[in-house]
Amino acid sequence: MPQSVQAIHARWVIPVEPTNTVLDHHTVVIEDSQLAAIVPTAQWQSSGAHVEEISLPEHALIPGLVNAHTHAAMSLFRGMADDRPLMDWLENHIWPAEARAINREFVRDGTRLAAAEMLLGGTTCFNDMYFFGDEAASAAIEAGIRAVIGMIVIGFPSAWAADVDEYFRKGQAVHDKFRDHPLITSAFAPHAPYTVDDHALRRIATLAEELDLPVHMHVQETKDEVERAIAVSGVRPLRRLQGLGLVTPRLLGVHMTCLDDDELDLLAHSGATVVHCPESNLKLASGFCPVAKLLARGVNVACGTDGAASNNDLDMLGEIRTASLLAKGVAGDPCALPAAQALRMATYNGAQALGLERSIGSLEVGKQADMVAIDLGELRARPVYDPVSQIIYSSHRDQVSQVWVGGRRVVRDRQLVTLDLADVRAATDDWAERIRQA
Amino acid sequence: MPQSVQAIHARWVIPVEPTNTVLDHHTVVIEDSQLAAIVPTAQWQSSGAHVEEISLPEHALIPGLVNAHTHAAMSLFRGMADDRPLMDWLENHIWPAEARAINREFVRDGTRLAAAEMLLGGTTCFNDMYFFGDEAASAAIEAGIRAVIGMIVIGFPSAWAADVDEYFRKGQAVHDKFRDHPLITSAFAPHAPYTVDDHALRRIATLAEELDLPVHMHVQETKDEVERAIAVSGVRPLRRLQGLGLVTPRLLGVHMTCLDDDELDLLAHSGATVVHCPESNLKLASGFCPVAKLLARGVNVACGTDGAASNNDLDMLGEIRTASLLAKGVAGDPCALPAAQALRMATYNGAQALGLERSIGSLEVGKQADMVAIDLGELRARPVYDPVSQIIYSSHRDQVSQVWVGGRRVVRDRQLVTLDLADVRAATDDWAERIRQA
Repeated sequence: MPQSVQAIHARWVIPVEPTNTVLDHHTVVIEDSQLAAIVPTAQWQSSGAHVEEISLPEHALIPGLVNAHTHAAMSLFRGMADDRPLMDWLENHIWPAEARAINREFVRDGTRLAAAEMLLGGTTCFNDMYFFGDEAASAAIEAGIRAVIGMIVIGFPSAWAADVDEYFRKGQAVHDKFRDHPLITSAFAPHAPYTVDDHALRRIATLAEELDLPVHMHVQETKDEVERAIAVSGVRPLRRLQGLGLVTPRLLGVHMTCLDDDELDLLAHSGATVVHCPESNLKLASGFCPVAKLLARGVNVACGTDGAASNNDLDMLGEIRTASLLAKGVAGDPCALPAAQALRMATYNGAQALGLERSIGSLEVGKQADMVAIDLGELRARPVYDPVSQIIYSSHRDQVSQVWVGGRRVVRDRQLVTLDLADVRAATDDWAERIRQA
Repeated sequence: MPQSVQAIHARWVIPVEPTNTVLDHHTVVIEDSQLAAIVPTAQWQSSGAHVEEISLPEHALIPGLVNAHTHAAMSLFRGMADDRPLMDWLENHIWPAEARAINREFVRDGTRLAAAEMLLGGTTCFNDMYFFGDEAASAAIEAGIRAVIGMIVIGFPSAWAADVDEYFRKGQAVHDKFRDHPLITSAFAPHAPYTVDDHALRRIATLAEELDLPVHMHVQETKDEVERAIAVSGVRPLRRLQGLGLVTPRLLGVHMTCLDDDELDLLAHSGATVVHCPESNLKLASGFCPVAKLLARGVNVACGTDGAASNNDLDMLGEIRTASLLAKGVAGDPCALPAAQALRMATYNGAQALGLERSIGSLEVGKQADMVAIDLGELRARPVYDPVSQIIYSSHRDQVSQVWVGGRRVVRDRQLVTLDLADVRAATDDWAERIRQA
């Protein structure tokens, strides 16, 4: 007997798998942490008085959104240095601020801020790359959000680790510590081809196989990065990673704006994932990821917000709207990345990239109940000819009314029940004051 | 003595003119319909008990947003036919639906829906191009929003007019009817170079001078349009309009994705306005307007949402965020269209395009009090290093808490006080049912 049963009666259920399916007037039954049934509401019968019934007569239920690339704690830098050239932004603002500010408390407070924003916007899982992964994991658990904690490796010292060996040691200690927590998994997170050497990358390739983990890495974010790599090593970064055994289904290559046809084929044959971050790519003028071409070749494309310092929000609904619009513009084809495919990119494809597609990413019986209710009753979402179109093209995260993670309803009637938002806000403003004065 | 005085104490006032100005802890005084004073709150003294004081301790006040191109009533087609090739969309969905649906009631109900959405999102003035302009004007007056009503001219019969002469006659009757209303002005609105002949365009050029009115027209929306025009007439559309005397400061050329260098110079020398509609251009894969190049040459660039059938919202805050991000991507320059310039595009530049810059478009004493309060106290807008950055890159229209048009507070604490939203919604859903079954 389950300890808790919820029956959610929804106007629409959009399971994502199978694709292109919209169920009218269906009831989703959650038993403990799992999806136990999806049935027409007219056929639903309560199993008893202990069942909590939730009526959502104007809402669509979708799988929880998966943010496949972010640096959560950087939300504390949101809006600190916009509209600047990339290297000025990095060298004169972001890196010095990081050097001054980052410590355990920064990552705890920044990740709490990010987790609150993400949950309220329908994101139920995020793939993080930052320092002090144990603090990020603890903040995620406190907030009730699923997280993939990156074991960051970078060829520079930081407040977190003095050298590559220490990055490995500390990352794996975090992995071991949270190994059995239902909300936390791990990924290797080598920062980028230009900041991690071959020796460390080979070690990651071996360990990722041994531990059965994804590898999360910025790759070919800009044309400039590719040209510098060729000047230094004679080879494009993705080919170098291939030579090191890293271009496999485990790889999440983030950004990938600069890809030639051979690389498109390589990605397709290898089964690697491209994590598309359209708003960061636009804001930093990094280039245009060829999303329609990747999808046409069958590449798994997931979607991420990047950090709030270069976006400047962690809004996955907004991100896939931008992705869908931009894909059409870049491909010159108004049929590119249609609404249903954009929704899949932000759910199932992200789960698959993270090796979590057996437990999340779609509303299927037996999976974890990571689920979001979107209110399509508001005037600006009316009329509703097609609920999937309305979700992608007309809806915004403030229409997210309910959010479940592993069966727990963490957002109720647009209120986050897990964190004290006044506390989060106070800590956020304190950090801004310190950073401003530093 | 003014009949009504409001004193709004705000955390920030962003007047747009002068540019790059952020006033901390200032009070804006509205007397009747006008901005009467902007003073530091510490120096403000009440003129008596009749003053309504409004405290906005975490808010930024900005000028009301000007939506410089829309087809308001088309909101009833929102999401009806997405992800389709342009000609399939137009010929098999939009035009047949218009042929079946459009009448006086459609324009009244659709414009009420659009006006409600726009006001709640901080848009206080819209430049409309559609049929039954008298209904659109009446709906705008009812909603309390400022509108520029397009006297549409198109070389096809419609439910509104049988031929070009009737379009002229009816358009000018609308102009005459609302001439003295403080919320309504008029513009000539020839649909596009390919749907209006030289004779009608010459007539518009003459009448626009006589009546001192703007000319609002789709121009060079796609490369295909330009190539077809060359095939038919041997000349690019903008050059043809120049020959007809239409490329003047009165012109609002909408879309303009396809521009060569000579045309960039022509626009700069002529003083014409380009109305940039980035989300519509992306969604229909129309091409990329060269916004950074236009601004570098000093062209007045305004911003519009286009209709909700191709966007699919009327969200000007979202539109200028997209405009700013896309301008950087297209220019390959993260400094292109910085936040303050994007805000100016959606306010002052729009007012200037419409010949309204002496009365709206900035918060200056003596202008009409068209003003919007944006709540920057919410977690997802924190921290606040730079309020202008937060408005453009991190804020969304649901943070709009108060909206004034001509001194009247039409949105109070996020509620529209002028229309019954349940009525608007019921009419909207009725239309969708009729259109779906037609």
